[in-house]
Amino acid sequence: MSDIAIGIDVGGTKALALVMRSDGEVLDELKAATPHETTHQAGEATAIVLGELVECLAKRHDLDVRATPVGVGLPGLLKKDGRLAYAPNLQSASGADVGALLRRALASVHVVCENDANCAALAEHAWGAGRGVDDFVMVTLGTGIGGGIIADGALLRGRSGFAGEIGHMVVDAHGIPCTCGGMGCWERYASGSGLRRLIHEAAKEGRLATLLDTHGSADDIRPEDVTLAANDGNEEAIDLLRQVGWWLALGLSNLAVILDAGHFVIGGGLSSASELVLPFARDYLSSLVEGYESRPPITITSSAFGPRSGAMGAALVAFERNG
Amino acid sequence: MSDIAIGIDVGGTKALALVMRSDGEVLDELKAATPHETTHQAGEATAIVLGELVECLAKRHDLDVRATPVGVGLPGLLKKDGRLAYAPNLQSASGADVGALLRRALASVHVVCENDANCAALAEHAWGAGRGVDDFVMVTLGTGIGGGIIADGALLRGRSGFAGEIGHMVVDAHGIPCTCGGMGCWERYASGSGLRRLIHEAAKEGRLATLLDTHGSADDIRPEDVTLAANDGNEEAIDLLRQVGWWLALGLSNLAVILDAGHFVIGGGLSSASELVLPFARDYLSSLVEGYESRPPITITSSAFGPRSGAMGAALVAFERNG
Repeated sequence: MSDIAIGIDVGGTKALALVMRSDGEVLDELKAATPHETTHQAGEATAIVLGELVECLAKRHDLDVRATPVGVGLPGLLKKDGRLAYAPNLQSASGADVGALLRRALASVHVVCENDANCAALAEHAWGAGRGVDDFVMVTLGTGIGGGIIADGALLRGRSGFAGEIGHMVVDAHGIPCTCGGMGCWERYASGSGLRRLIHEAAKEGRLATLLDTHGSADDIRPEDVTLAANDGNEEAIDLLRQVGWWLALGLSNLAVILDAGHFVIGGGLSSASELVLPFARDYLSSLVEGYESRPPITITSSAFGPRSGAMGAALVAFERNG
Repeated sequence: MSDIAIGIDVGGTKALALVMRSDGEVLDELKAATPHETTHQAGEATAIVLGELVECLAKRHDLDVRATPVGVGLPGLLKKDGRLAYAPNLQSASGADVGALLRRALASVHVVCENDANCAALAEHAWGAGRGVDDFVMVTLGTGIGGGIIADGALLRGRSGFAGEIGHMVVDAHGIPCTCGGMGCWERYASGSGLRRLIHEAAKEGRLATLLDTHGSADDIRPEDVTLAANDGNEEAIDLLRQVGWWLALGLSNLAVILDAGHFVIGGGLSSASELVLPFARDYLSSLVEGYESRPPITITSSAFGPRSGAMGAALVAFERNG
């Protein structure tokens, strides 16, 4: 039908909407804060904001809202029927059918939903760092870790559509508590939260003096500050990123042996640190993967589209499921 | 072609061969010790023993060896072309194309190879505890842990055919060394080896007095002895199986969140302990899986065919790839 779709990636803090052609070219984009009010019915506040983003982009590009495919990437356990079963980072929409609410708001039938990391995997598979690769995992590093698995050329969805919750794989049986209620989940170590924890530990042990001088307290040192300091050659900052790289490699190694994935695409908010973290992760991988020498090389690259992967993938899903 | 195939499961200690009809009915079986000599060319000693098993079964059932499909399940990293890339438990065949050697020995073209746990998964999927289930994982508990993943109704093979090496997923980042060279692999905890380690720990701490009285030393207490004692109500033995159940649940939980598998089929040599271990694993699962309450129930059952699953699946593969 249409050669234009709108894709929206709904994160815990902001929603990114874009207008995309079916060949992956992005024509425009728009952001809004993700609402967290719980005064409305579940998901309604989200649907209102998404509806406004769609209306605004449609107006700018002279699109008929009711005829334009709209794809929405949502964080959490998204059921195959489009309902959000569990969304710790978007609790105001937990349990809601955001797609149905948005269809009503827009008076359109062309709205589809998919898990956000799955969307990112699909975009990278179609046009980005996973192009032509049949078996890879998209790993989004942010506050937590999301995942989208491409197996034998197709998205692995699992029984209910919940596959790819890789951040909650336990890598440290007696490890630290996770927001999910578990202990030792991978996302406690290899994400932005993991780096923040390392900053606190280092500060407590009397390291990171230069950063503490500049920023005051460990609470005020952001992951970006560590990246900047490491880029300036600060050995203690480099060491923290090395540790994140080790934890990253540990989880990737698990995915490599379970799925026999040969490639990993790293995206998400922590990707500013990627340039420094990924070389460490690549180095550590060889000592972590069972039978590493007997396997073809396993590669790790940065996302081709950075923070746009999710919204681009959402638009792609909108094309495919409205095609 | 034929309605009869021969399936062989090659383990680290013995090879089990059986004659099977295409509907899964097993007509006969035969065992032999797995050879470990390295005086022959890699894989040749194995191929000779397997050839003898096939010839013997063919004779008994008046089968034409050259026209009978033969499937071989092999432990380790089996490439899609049938070559064993890495086989820590069958080192004499590591690097070999066992299928090609067996084809030559039998003057047959109908020999195919597949990973042993993948074979077991296929048999359970066709006729056993995974029948009608689109997303499940076959978990073989023995000295180590093997795995076969059925995703969306089909075997997940991965880039090179190596998928399902679930025993080498790291669940304890700073854990004990594994035979693969890694640290903290799941199979160090939830397998027969894991139970042996727990026996030693318990003995060192002054527990298991009754078992030690009967058997002499911790080295002489076998996993079966713990199962027997637990069945007799020995609380210390029950506690060891409870711990194995916790470790088992931990790994299953990881697979559940990564793959969104809703079902696990437990087979392998440790399955004698399953009756006692599985209830503990089921109990622990609910506190380990992220968003457990938002998911449909996750089930764990014992293999329907016990030690025969692998050979039955190998015969099934022989039918399918010669069909």
